[in-house]
Amino acid sequence: MLRWKTVAIVGVGLIGGSIGLALRKRGLARDTIGVGRRPENLRTAKSLGAVTATSQSIDEGVADADLVIVCTPVAEIVNHVLQAAAAAPECAILTDAGSTKESIVKTVDAELGRKNRFVGSHPLAGSEKTGVANARADLFEGRVVVVTPSRKTNPEHLTAVADFWSGLGATVLLMSPAEHDKALATTSHLPHLIASAAARETSQAELPLTAGGWRDLTRIAASDPELWTQILWENRGHVLKSLSRFEKTVAAFRTALEQGDRRKLRKLLTEGKEVRDAVGN
Amino acid sequence: MLRWKTVAIVGVGLIGGSIGLALRKRGLARDTIGVGRRPENLRTAKSLGAVTATSQSIDEGVADADLVIVCTPVAEIVNHVLQAAAAAPECAILTDAGSTKESIVKTVDAELGRKNRFVGSHPLAGSEKTGVANARADLFEGRVVVVTPSRKTNPEHLTAVADFWSGLGATVLLMSPAEHDKALATTSHLPHLIASAAARETSQAELPLTAGGWRDLTRIAASDPELWTQILWENRGHVLKSLSRFEKTVAAFRTALEQGDRRKLRKLLTEGKEVRDAVGN
Repeated sequence: MLRWKTVAIVGVGLIGGSIGLALRKRGLARDTIGVGRRPENLRTAKSLGAVTATSQSIDEGVADADLVIVCTPVAEIVNHVLQAAAAAPECAILTDAGSTKESIVKTVDAELGRKNRFVGSHPLAGSEKTGVANARADLFEGRVVVVTPSRKTNPEHLTAVADFWSGLGATVLLMSPAEHDKALATTSHLPHLIASAAARETSQAELPLTAGGWRDLTRIAASDPELWTQILWENRGHVLKSLSRFEKTVAAFRTALEQGDRRKLRKLLTEGKEVRDAVGN
Repeated sequence: MLRWKTVAIVGVGLIGGSIGLALRKRGLARDTIGVGRRPENLRTAKSLGAVTATSQSIDEGVADADLVIVCTPVAEIVNHVLQAAAAAPECAILTDAGSTKESIVKTVDAELGRKNRFVGSHPLAGSEKTGVANARADLFEGRVVVVTPSRKTNPEHLTAVADFWSGLGATVLLMSPAEHDKALATTSHLPHLIASAAARETSQAELPLTAGGWRDLTRIAASDPELWTQILWENRGHVLKSLSRFEKTVAAFRTALEQGDRRKLRKLLTEGKEVRDAVGN
């Protein structure tokens, strides 16, 4: 089953740590090197068995890697990919786990030119719980990972990256970086904005009157504000378009309430239910 | 422990059925009579042990009751309370489980005058899963039930209704009907509207790209559209005010994105996180 000799994981949080645990559980890699800034976090990652060795230096950590996965926050991914590409063996393949793809892939493509061995990825397996302490070997099982080849992607590299995620139990979907960002604006990025806005409107005095509905709606408002500032910012073009559509629907609800149009209200709620029912729990 | 001789439950769905199961588990009532329209549903309720007897007639079902709980949809509660009040023994106390309170309490107060033995209640223990098949004896344990006395409420009736819910394991909060409706507009009613609008904006093609965040955000969009049309409609005054605040916050996010104001974006997300973190999972 051993598919990789040395996998370097740059950024060992929830995603990076879960990749390490999954590789170990499935016996897919001989060595997994965790690269990060904070020694304490690297010690935790090693003690949990998420990595077999650690380094605070990207250059050192990727030196023997045949696969590098950059799992750092969106705003840092390009720099880390470029640094890893320069330091890793020539045969090494690189990918990432960032929530946005268009600007990352475009910049890396432009910077690396013909030497490019990077293929963008996005595992749809985040959580409002972050950090390696919450990592799980089964995080990717049955989940979707979008892999986003560009026109410059070598098909062999694409296959290797797709196989990597399949090997962790994920279902791989291929999309262009732009298609990815457009869809994720609606299915992930805008939801964080909405959840945060809804939470923010609730006063201290009202909190004892929240129940399961409010808690579900606002759960992802607990996510890291810095990380989500980066994601919303990177994908602002598509997010703004999704946001306009959402604002129009909300305005339709308002008009229905103001005009006493109960039929319209029921129609809007029914259309929402139809979409939600198609997804299941 | 026997506190009630005969409890009549008008409307045996998730809430009514759970009340019946909780009364039985805690040995609080000798008889629980389930009243409903559909014979099949009443048979299910009885076979699950949620009620000890059933009737399709309110008049017959409440004839021996010392407590009547009306658990029908919001738009039908007033009629069912009035009918039950006319048919129940003079000493019987009445309450309900409706998600809105102001218009229900006002109308019942006006109709029943001095004979009024109704005190409004709202258990914050719903779910997008409805029906007696999903009923649970522990549904109210550790949950909040708001009891909403009006100026005309007899303190003895209030105490009896508050004790009833405490007896099922709930924490009872007392609020005026108007205070209740104002707070619940933000903590429950608006969230349903938002969840529905967010679900509705997601296209079929995008559904495979939804993950935990979208699923949490939109979960309550799966609720019954007819029920929520009634609730939004009954509480439209307060819902429209909450909605205006929400729309302003969403517009602030939009402006921050349009103007490239990352600091403002981070501030909005941080404020949302602070509220959400105060509630916990």
